[in-house]
Amino acid sequence: MYQFDYQYRIRYADIDQMGYMYYGNYAKLYEIGRVEALRSLGLRYRDLEESGIIMPVYENHSKFISPAKYDELITIRVIIKELPKVRIVFNYEIFDESETLIHTGETTLVFLKTNNNRITVCPSEIIEKLNPFF
Amino acid sequence: MYQFDYQYRIRYADIDQMGYMYYGNYAKLYEIGRVEALRSLGLRYRDLEESGIIMPVYENHSKFISPAKYDELITIRVIIKELPKVRIVFNYEIFDESETLIHTGETTLVFLKTNNNRITVCPSEIIEKLNPFF
Amino acid sequence: MYQFDYQYRIRYADIDQMGYMYYGNYAKLYEIGRVEALRSLGLRYRDLEESGIIMPVYENHSKFISPAKYDELITIRVIIKELPKVRIVFNYEIFDESETLIHTGETTLVFLKTNNNRITVCPSEIIEKLNPFF
Amino acid sequence: MYQFDYQYRIRYADIDQMGYMYYGNYAKLYEIGRVEALRSLGLRYRDLEESGIIMPVYENHSKFISPAKYDELITIRVIIKELPKVRIVFNYEIFDESETLIHTGETTLVFLKTNNNRITVCPSEIIEKLNPFF
Repeated sequence: MYQFDYQYRIRYADIDQMGYMYYGNYAKLYEIGRVEALRSLGLRYRDLEESGIIMPVYENHSKFISPAKYDELITIRVIIKELPKVRIVFNYEIFDESETLIHTGETTLVFLKTNNNRITVCPSEIIEKLNPFF
Repeated sequence: MYQFDYQYRIRYADIDQMGYMYYGNYAKLYEIGRVEALRSLGLRYRDLEESGIIMPVYENHSKFISPAKYDELITIRVIIKELPKVRIVFNYEIFDESETLIHTGETTLVFLKTNNNRITVCPSEIIEKLNPFF
Repeated sequence: MYQFDYQYRIRYADIDQMGYMYYGNYAKLYEIGRVEALRSLGLRYRDLEESGIIMPVYENHSKFISPAKYDELITIRVIIKELPKVRIVFNYEIFDESETLIHTGETTLVFLKTNNNRITVCPSEIIEKLNPFF
Repeated sequence: MYQFDYQYRIRYADIDQMGYMYYGNYAKLYEIGRVEALRSLGLRYRDLEESGIIMPVYENHSKFISPAKYDELITIRVIIKELPKVRIVFNYEIFDESETLIHTGETTLVFLKTNNNRITVCPSEIIEKLNPFF
């Protein structure tokens, strides 16, 4: 299992007139969490893209337990539970400033070669970096 | 069952550097679909809010079959499969310009009274408008 | 002068906890207005892009007179005051449901050839469509 | 004069199919810069709001020199050139990873009392914190 925590400040741009983070903005938090989790492993998603592999999202689940509020410094916990093969699954747990779990999510992404627009297996550089944790 | 179709034009603001609609923006399409489905029944979400009931999202699932692309006029199909009680579930099917299914989604919302911040049952005006379809 | 009106419904995704449209979202309204103004002339921005011309924004000014509010059906008026040469300037007037002017804006865009990443003059197909109005 | 630098990582959610940060997302960078500049002075915008003062944007100007690109760690420089009276003006200079100036902006905000919805002067706690720099 690989786990990584990243902090995010809720912005005015993120919240709605209920005073809550707009429900559609959690996907952006997941993206930030995924990219920073990969960076913490020494992997940059932009390098992957430049090498001809993109990672479109295939499936996304979100559960909203309590609202995230303006200016709170929340923690995005990113968890990879299994070594990826043709798909990579990221789980998220989001905590508010008082470390209460307010949100969970799960995103499944695939690997796509940009030269032929075809699904491929997880690149070996990702497997190598993740392997020590499994 | 209640079903309603609404068209949406994909904007530059919506797409990412893959040339696809950013995966986080589908939630906005769901919101548009829900609100317009209610309006087609003679219900305005803003009236509901002004009467003291808000509808926070509790759960959201999305499945990305094919990408939505810039400037396409897509169709958001909103489906209510069951009469709501303490929750209301909206299903979505999104079709591209050639009427191919490119995305499915499901959102569960609850009803919250703003005066005491407590969960409540589905307001009778929603039940009354939906009843003929079930 | 060329002038075109387009209606837009303010969404929950657009508003902030003041209950106003978030100030950063007006740029999206301008984009919608510009693209629909061009479409009304028989020009699709996506065709332009596919022909190898993109139109990056060079300058943007916004004046916020009164807030746009949730669920309002606002009108985006797009005005082209001069035939474009190396730049094209769009002016906007945004009106609320009671036809009160609530916002003005101005965007200057340039024409960029994607094959050599260089600035170019306004494509002749735009000039031809705009010419009758000047 | 008060000046403050804050770093921001460009996200996938921010960019468009030109591979540039979408022009409408700079306003969000300005917001982040403003709020963090105030925080660096010991002022939290959320406290101000809770005390009954909101700061709606009155005017915004942006100049796009070069694009911000995916995954770049840009620097938002926030500059307050004059002590605020009934308005506060923030200037911004945005630099890319190689410290090249890629964008400038200016936002004018007003102070509004939420209890009577009327314009007021800059709160004394802001003046006190800014005074030493002027």
